[in-house]
Amino acid sequence: MADEPRLTHLNRQGEAHIVDIGDKAETRRRAVAEAVIEAAPRTIAAIAGGSLKKGDALTVARIAGIMAAKKTSELIPLCHPIALTSVEVEIAPVGEAALRVVATAESTGRTGVEMEALTAATVAALTLYDMAKAIDRGMTIGYVRLMEKSGGKSGDYRRSQ
Amino acid sequence: MADEPRLTHLNRQGEAHIVDIGDKAETRRRAVAEAVIEAAPRTIAAIAGGSLKKGDALTVARIAGIMAAKKTSELIPLCHPIALTSVEVEIAPVGEAALRVVATAESTGRTGVEMEALTAATVAALTLYDMAKAIDRGMTIGYVRLMEKSGGKSGDYRRSQ
Amino acid sequence: MADEPRLTHLNRQGEAHIVDIGDKAETRRRAVAEAVIEAAPRTIAAIAGGSLKKGDALTVARIAGIMAAKKTSELIPLCHPIALTSVEVEIAPVGEAALRVVATAESTGRTGVEMEALTAATVAALTLYDMAKAIDRGMTIGYVRLMEKSGGKSGDYRRSQ
Amino acid sequence: MADEPRLTHLNRQGEAHIVDIGDKAETRRRAVAEAVIEAAPRTIAAIAGGSLKKGDALTVARIAGIMAAKKTSELIPLCHPIALTSVEVEIAPVGEAALRVVATAESTGRTGVEMEALTAATVAALTLYDMAKAIDRGMTIGYVRLMEKSGGKSGDYRRSQ
Amino acid sequence: MADEPRLTHLNRQGEAHIVDIGDKAETRRRAVAEAVIEAAPRTIAAIAGGSLKKGDALTVARIAGIMAAKKTSELIPLCHPIALTSVEVEIAPVGEAALRVVATAESTGRTGVEMEALTAATVAALTLYDMAKAIDRGMTIGYVRLMEKSGGKSGDYRRSQ
Amino acid sequence: MADEPRLTHLNRQGEAHIVDIGDKAETRRRAVAEAVIEAAPRTIAAIAGGSLKKGDALTVARIAGIMAAKKTSELIPLCHPIALTSVEVEIAPVGEAALRVVATAESTGRTGVEMEALTAATVAALTLYDMAKAIDRGMTIGYVRLMEKSGGKSGDYRRSQ
Repeated sequence: MADEPRLTHLNRQGEAHIVDIGDKAETRRRAVAEAVIEAAPRTIAAIAGGSLKKGDALTVARIAGIMAAKKTSELIPLCHPIALTSVEVEIAPVGEAALRVVATAESTGRTGVEMEALTAATVAALTLYDMAKAIDRGMTIGYVRLMEKSGGKSGDYRRSQ
Repeated sequence: MADEPRLTHLNRQGEAHIVDIGDKAETRRRAVAEAVIEAAPRTIAAIAGGSLKKGDALTVARIAGIMAAKKTSELIPLCHPIALTSVEVEIAPVGEAALRVVATAESTGRTGVEMEALTAATVAALTLYDMAKAIDRGMTIGYVRLMEKSGGKSGDYRRSQ
Repeated sequence: MADEPRLTHLNRQGEAHIVDIGDKAETRRRAVAEAVIEAAPRTIAAIAGGSLKKGDALTVARIAGIMAAKKTSELIPLCHPIALTSVEVEIAPVGEAALRVVATAESTGRTGVEMEALTAATVAALTLYDMAKAIDRGMTIGYVRLMEKSGGKSGDYRRSQ
Repeated sequence: MADEPRLTHLNRQGEAHIVDIGDKAETRRRAVAEAVIEAAPRTIAAIAGGSLKKGDALTVARIAGIMAAKKTSELIPLCHPIALTSVEVEIAPVGEAALRVVATAESTGRTGVEMEALTAATVAALTLYDMAKAIDRGMTIGYVRLMEKSGGKSGDYRRSQ
Repeated sequence: MADEPRLTHLNRQGEAHIVDIGDKAETRRRAVAEAVIEAAPRTIAAIAGGSLKKGDALTVARIAGIMAAKKTSELIPLCHPIALTSVEVEIAPVGEAALRVVATAESTGRTGVEMEALTAATVAALTLYDMAKAIDRGMTIGYVRLMEKSGGKSGDYRRSQ
Repeated sequence: MADEPRLTHLNRQGEAHIVDIGDKAETRRRAVAEAVIEAAPRTIAAIAGGSLKKGDALTVARIAGIMAAKKTSELIPLCHPIALTSVEVEIAPVGEAALRVVATAESTGRTGVEMEALTAATVAALTLYDMAKAIDRGMTIGYVRLMEKSGGKSGDYRRSQ
């Protein structure tokens, strides 16, 4: 397949490696990713609903996402270790049957932070799943994707809706 | 909302805790979860395509999923540490524009292994994303969900298609 | 010093090791530990004060304590890895110039969970310190101590006030 | 409470996040923290006493503190990952019923290393507790506090005794 | 190659997985492994030599080995997580140009602890290397091997010298 | 012993510490290390042999080595945390009774990456051992050593064969 693109994480022998970024310039990097968890409306209400203490479930999920961002290079084998300068995770309802997680990661370094943002969003969503699974096993996580990135030689990216 | 279910991970004060499983019986536990990564056909071909060494990308993702299953209780704040007795991750194409990850986790213990299976499937999918992101930023991970579980007092579960 | 007690974590050569618990019976274990953070009243108010969202700081600290309990054997070199069955961390004001953290850990196993409770209480207190350090560098953490324990051959313990 | 200071780790919505340090300058950072463990004199003697091999217990605690400093950002949810350039932990008797741990951390970066020094001191003290707990359950850890810091925009700090 | 043995860690499709031990009985397991580090005599003297404080280098290496044993399942992808009941690491000179590390691991469980003993011995040796590398880059680690094991269905093993 | 060299990881009191590299310049660092695993020819064939899927065992070992390089400062107590810019692990047969692992690590920083390369090579070899241990308990890992390094004030090094 002549026009097949080459995965950068495989070397010329087709073997996985951590690609050399030693010659890349240090620039400000930023990435925003999302994930959506869909559940029964009464599950969403139990997680995010009105009463004061409900907020605890969302805070637990946000903290899990933030801490997971810092673990990205331990989880994704070919990710470089990155000194994150900022991580933020927000969770808000989308209609009455879904919650949307938006994670933003920033760094000043030689490689992008897309995987950090994606990992944060995903682990936050899995944490919501964990807390609600006893009442709703049918939940689904989806729309795990990069929304935008900036910094680095490959230029900026913004997902078209 | 009178019939709103209570999240088991919040105590009576609405505060998050690791729920007490000390009185539960040790039984064989099994869970199967899936995740699907959707990408351009040429991206899927680059990951999974015909030539011998391509298999390396799939193996990297499977290993990442297996290792992540063992890290579940470090990632998900209210998960109990679990001594997994088996973990398996399989990845196969679904049409020409998607790969499906199926993760199976097993344990003999006092709590289920759904989160371990879900974490394995998700991290395997994120690893595929990482290796292909330089050629395709539009990939999406979805269908992250529990397929079946067995063991424990709450009984068996099998997702209806 | 003839009556000097021997540290169990040092073997006959005086070298540190993880003591053999293979012959101990599996019993229900429980430990409660506390830590107190003292700060200026306005710092305590900023952490725990009246408005709704303030609760977030306490939740972050409680989650940090819970997750740290699960990391105890990674932090304390001679601790055995333990499958915790329950962890709970509570934080409440003591007067207007202190917050008290109480951590409870439980397990069914061959060794006690005192270090897990102490680690949870301590890391929760350090997390409060971290969040408030920009406004108050004079905070002090103290009263880090075991309140009670049960289970195991050495019998129950309850600190006299 | 109009003059109540704002926690920097909470954003405008009162939600915890890792604060953005991307615009901060890289400077040499240094922090010194202490912790004190109080125990019965015969416990202190068992840990630190005269015979040659006793030193092993202190070395184990110092190493635990050093390794914990490197884990700070895994333990404290909103801490940035930091490339420490130096860590030192010293332990010395204070009278016959206490040991004092002093930890010094250094880095060249965009944020301070107070939490690294505090974490090192605390985990070293917890490790001493662990090794002596079979002979003395009444030990208490206290005086966990920052002694001095330098570097960064907020200026130098030295605790007044 | 008709008589070629099958690796148990590869399933029927030749894909790596964590083998199912759910049906195995829990028995007492024990494994002893060694590693030898060879260096110039003056390097060995600097590490292990006569003066009191030299012991610190050996203690650091022993603690590193003990802590690494607890991390085995994080390092070796297809290892099961294991609740070790005992770990011991000893280091002694072999002639004047080598140090021998002997690590013993024990557990009560469904799978052996060979990898835990081997990991402890190896990381202890690497730690010695690290501390001495500024004075001797020519050191070599070898003889990393299993000395004996007991427990489990496959029976006892003792290496013939 | 007047001419005995001093270990840099011990301070003037002979106590272990993480040496201060704050004054060192940031330079490109590179290190190459090797490890050799010796086994029965039929074991080597089972790991590396002809059929397509055999490659899976080698890929698992290479990934384990790459991930271990990123964990070096968690394993080796006095290692500085390092932001690796590249990691590569290659495995090839040496005759019919051995496999040779060669690991290359790179960074731009204030300290060398020898330990990262050595850790990668060693953990890759241990992973091969793990996968083959059910069919061959007599395997030995040896020749764990630094092949070359460059960068830093101490100059370049290349092992003479």
